[in-house]
Amino acid sequence: MKQIAESACFGGRQYRFEHHSITLACLMRFSIYLPPLPTETGQGPGMTRLPVLYWLSGLSCTDENFIQKAGAQRLAAELGMILVAPDTSPRGEGVADDPGQAYDLGLGAGFYINASETPWAANYRMFDYVAEELPALVCRHFPVDPERQSVSGHSMGGHGALVLALRKPACFRSVSAFAPICAPASCPWGRKAFTAYLGTDESAWQQYDATRLMSGISEFTLPLLIDQGDADPFLQEQLQPELLLAAARQNGVSIDYRLRPGYDHSYFYIASFIAEHLQFHFAALTA
Amino acid sequence: MKQIAESACFGGRQYRFEHHSITLACLMRFSIYLPPLPTETGQGPGMTRLPVLYWLSGLSCTDENFIQKAGAQRLAAELGMILVAPDTSPRGEGVADDPGQAYDLGLGAGFYINASETPWAANYRMFDYVAEELPALVCRHFPVDPERQSVSGHSMGGHGALVLALRKPACFRSVSAFAPICAPASCPWGRKAFTAYLGTDESAWQQYDATRLMSGISEFTLPLLIDQGDADPFLQEQLQPELLLAAARQNGVSIDYRLRPGYDHSYFYIASFIAEHLQFHFAALTA
Repeated sequence: MKQIAESACFGGRQYRFEHHSITLACLMRFSIYLPPLPTETGQGPGMTRLPVLYWLSGLSCTDENFIQKAGAQRLAAELGMILVAPDTSPRGEGVADDPGQAYDLGLGAGFYINASETPWAANYRMFDYVAEELPALVCRHFPVDPERQSVSGHSMGGHGALVLALRKPACFRSVSAFAPICAPASCPWGRKAFTAYLGTDESAWQQYDATRLMSGISEFTLPLLIDQGDADPFLQEQLQPELLLAAARQNGVSIDYRLRPGYDHSYFYIASFIAEHLQFHFAALTA
Repeated sequence: MKQIAESACFGGRQYRFEHHSITLACLMRFSIYLPPLPTETGQGPGMTRLPVLYWLSGLSCTDENFIQKAGAQRLAAELGMILVAPDTSPRGEGVADDPGQAYDLGLGAGFYINASETPWAANYRMFDYVAEELPALVCRHFPVDPERQSVSGHSMGGHGALVLALRKPACFRSVSAFAPICAPASCPWGRKAFTAYLGTDESAWQQYDATRLMSGISEFTLPLLIDQGDADPFLQEQLQPELLLAAARQNGVSIDYRLRPGYDHSYFYIASFIAEHLQFHFAALTA
């Protein structure tokens, strides 16, 4: 693992690292923010390990958008939370991309799933990467507490966060999402990506569709916050929170749904409410 | 003037506008943040006009860097301050650029001066643009109080803010700068740009060099804050705050100089301390 950037930030340190991912068979970058550390923090016995929030970004983003634009470090520093932001797809020479370089397929559009179809299957295994390889790597190198992990994300990354938490609830203390794609099997972005990555048999899509997963579970007790701007241009066609809310209601799962009048899909919106999400996760991480 | 973007942000609105600049003879963009407005705010008689902070960005930036990365809107919303961020140079077809497209000359590197040399003189008149045309435009279209203006900036924009305040102290209530180029006539960035824009006669440079201006003034009573990270890679060769501090000391001018251990030149540094600057300006703007 190689450090490629480091900056002091709100009394802590903002880093970027590069490592060779076995899961994705390519070099990957991720960003990590370490708040001001108590002096006894470290890797040895008696060390203090801190709670961690994983952030999954949306279409066309890299590991940098969130750390540059959301302003999350301010409160993370105050609360003592580590923030980890992976990239949104495998990258590099030999990694398949959409021939037309569409923003919603291929590079920058991994959808946090394990692809089964050619040519994607060779590298596009973002579900395993964010569920297993990355947390294990982070745990080896940084003072995170693996028992205190939460996950959040935006748009495609909100979908990723929801799917991750619904499939691996034991790994997380809480989950939140800004403007998530709530039912990818039922919207243009999701149908395009899932058809390419998973093939036309839609039964293989279910495991990556938050609404279908929500319909199929017997219980889900993680604190779950969904944030949505009502002026988001993607709300009706692509995001469809009403489908997830209905599935949750039918299944007796409680969602803290916060609709924001006048807000759109941008990082100006995320920045406006990220503090509420950090507080939400912090409460669950320290309960 | 044409609106090209609008997002809700911390209860206010973040905008981008495009207008034809007479001074620069090209289309220009600027960003403006309006905090949540009191209901009686507006353009008519009896309206409430708000204090405004102008932000001048550094080399290679546009009007977007500050508004996307500094996180200033959060506190501006709370304090009721308007934020205005212009672009860093003229742009567009027919506007001269460095033949080698260097980041420190031509597009993105206007240095907030009025060029006298060919081919720059036709468009590169950023001093007049930020000192006169832009504030007049902003005042016509937004509820800013022209009696309550302050100015800040970063690096090349910190130089711009200092020069503007030193030459037009009656126009501002306070001035601050993050990692400013304090003595452009004495550093490589400044000497390269001034030679190109102003010619080799260095006597023409003085009016745009904060340290020389500071040495030449009889009094300067604006609150003045200089912020500097001590891990900034440009500190010794390009920024040289010690020259400005010495000139101020000799002239009996007081500078609130805040040196930040471990901080670099990035927006992670700016984001960490922008709240201190907004509070500094707010105190002067409401005194």
